[in-house]
Amino acid sequence: MTVNFPDVLTKISTFIFDVDGVLTNGSVVLFPDGEQVRTMNIKDGFALQLAVKKGFKVAIISGGKSEAVKKRLQGLGIFDIYMGQSDKLDAYLELLSIYNLQPDEIAYMGDDLPDYQILEKVALKSCPANAASEILGIANYVSPYNGGDGCVRDIIEKVMRAQDKWFNPDIKDIAHQW
Amino acid sequence: MTVNFPDVLTKISTFIFDVDGVLTNGSVVLFPDGEQVRTMNIKDGFALQLAVKKGFKVAIISGGKSEAVKKRLQGLGIFDIYMGQSDKLDAYLELLSIYNLQPDEIAYMGDDLPDYQILEKVALKSCPANAASEILGIANYVSPYNGGDGCVRDIIEKVMRAQDKWFNPDIKDIAHQW
Amino acid sequence: MTVNFPDVLTKISTFIFDVDGVLTNGSVVLFPDGEQVRTMNIKDGFALQLAVKKGFKVAIISGGKSEAVKKRLQGLGIFDIYMGQSDKLDAYLELLSIYNLQPDEIAYMGDDLPDYQILEKVALKSCPANAASEILGIANYVSPYNGGDGCVRDIIEKVMRAQDKWFNPDIKDIAHQW
Amino acid sequence: MTVNFPDVLTKISTFIFDVDGVLTNGSVVLFPDGEQVRTMNIKDGFALQLAVKKGFKVAIISGGKSEAVKKRLQGLGIFDIYMGQSDKLDAYLELLSIYNLQPDEIAYMGDDLPDYQILEKVALKSCPANAASEILGIANYVSPYNGGDGCVRDIIEKVMRAQDKWFNPDIKDIAHQW
Repeated sequence: MTVNFPDVLTKISTFIFDVDGVLTNGSVVLFPDGEQVRTMNIKDGFALQLAVKKGFKVAIISGGKSEAVKKRLQGLGIFDIYMGQSDKLDAYLELLSIYNLQPDEIAYMGDDLPDYQILEKVALKSCPANAASEILGIANYVSPYNGGDGCVRDIIEKVMRAQDKWFNPDIKDIAHQW
Repeated sequence: MTVNFPDVLTKISTFIFDVDGVLTNGSVVLFPDGEQVRTMNIKDGFALQLAVKKGFKVAIISGGKSEAVKKRLQGLGIFDIYMGQSDKLDAYLELLSIYNLQPDEIAYMGDDLPDYQILEKVALKSCPANAASEILGIANYVSPYNGGDGCVRDIIEKVMRAQDKWFNPDIKDIAHQW
Repeated sequence: MTVNFPDVLTKISTFIFDVDGVLTNGSVVLFPDGEQVRTMNIKDGFALQLAVKKGFKVAIISGGKSEAVKKRLQGLGIFDIYMGQSDKLDAYLELLSIYNLQPDEIAYMGDDLPDYQILEKVALKSCPANAASEILGIANYVSPYNGGDGCVRDIIEKVMRAQDKWFNPDIKDIAHQW
Repeated sequence: MTVNFPDVLTKISTFIFDVDGVLTNGSVVLFPDGEQVRTMNIKDGFALQLAVKKGFKVAIISGGKSEAVKKRLQGLGIFDIYMGQSDKLDAYLELLSIYNLQPDEIAYMGDDLPDYQILEKVALKSCPANAASEILGIANYVSPYNGGDGCVRDIIEKVMRAQDKWFNPDIKDIAHQW
């Protein structure tokens, strides 16, 4: 299912990510006050802020709601954050319209059935290794990493390397916050 | 130990789940105030609310007590929640009586010895891959997934697929909250 | 390193456990208020309360300190809890003296160097699969399970089965709290 | 990539560690109040305080900021703690200057690109098994353990054993707090 396609990778200008099972490992800690607390990954965060810094558009479309998630993502430089989306396709179409984006410049990563309809439409249809079977079936790039374990870093790195924009350790090229 | 039996699957109208080690990975975080905090899985949650939406009865029987767990489950549309059950069989028999259910329409998933007596009685005797040895011995369906890692999603998906009720991504068929 | 020795197992009257890396997976969550929060395992808890109920003495000797850990252990029926022990051997010798115990009736499970001196002395020298190398070297029973992942359940079950005291699912033999 | 070099190991006087992905598994729990909560490992902590006790200098250079992490590290006897470092090299050079250290007496462990420039300079260039590919490429010691899962313990133990300073269980040699 994993495909290497330079043509697709070099055209990507925009990353859109699901939250639960992609930026997290899919678990929620049930805090006593009823809050559902998520856990994210520092290596993903490093890649997200680097992508922003190098001029990629990064957006989030999530079925769940969490102020703490929003806060962390904003700290990484991401401001197009759709939460509590019962129909993710609406948010996707709004993003396309606002920023005048074409499907062939979009990489989407999702892990479960609510992500299916967006994946059908974008050029780079990616998912974590432990995505639902229907999603694995439609993806054209299955990351070797699970949700919350670096799948976001993996797809960002792959695209940015194809465009020669990935971090160069020999240059003072480190983002200041992640 | 894993059996594929269309006859059993097609008759199931009701799912009953244990909490610790089934809907969670069996760990409790010991918060400073003495609260024992559980962690649940988003993919399980998606399947639970879909099962409710498609007309299955879903109930919970747990030896532990947690308001946060109850709150999350209610948010998924589950209201038959027995907690703090020193004898789980009583709760099971009460459920049968209230809803006039027969054992051959019930799928139960549990992972440890307090679940043994219910498993003996139901048609679909399921457990996570990492259940206690006695439970593995009596189950007629052992999920390939561990507790908290998708075993609940797995058994729900299996039953719903057998009844042609599983999510159809081509239809606007997504539940609005999970 | 794993040995099966009915003679040792049948004489055990007392279990002593380390906390971090044995009853937990060795991780501490660093809460904002400075509290170091542990995570325990429900299957271990089930075995601990069953051992107490069937007449075994169960004690805890930990280098760390945590009121939340103490509270959970007391809820399982364990009251000989030594915490903040810079020298665990002192606590061990005190336990022997208070309860007039002999080393040949004691099972100890520890995972790291501060447990070494006690392990040298007891009959059943056990440790989790991921114990420190010195501990693996001195143990006469290495559980196949890691700390926090069922190693405590494993050693208790092993001893209780050898003494025909393990849970019998056909009898109403379930402890009321775990 | 793993090399055994007694010459390098015997000259080490100073350990410097990154936090996220080295002393932690790289995940941050997103608490409702916006705090990003880390999880550390008791076996690493045992080794850190033992290294301090046996006269090694131990310092921390982190891109992130966390009072709870600082508090725990100080409890282990570590006081050279640089946090919120957008450029880690500055902190490294300051440490060298303050303590008049030479690169050939320094072991550094880091897991991601912001650690690259320090790793280039030190004698013992170490990283966890799950470090970023650029870091794996430059390291001269890749621990078999992942971040948060004992990689810190591993490198400390390796150096201290080479210098005959590792814990001797037959002596009353246990640090009083970890």
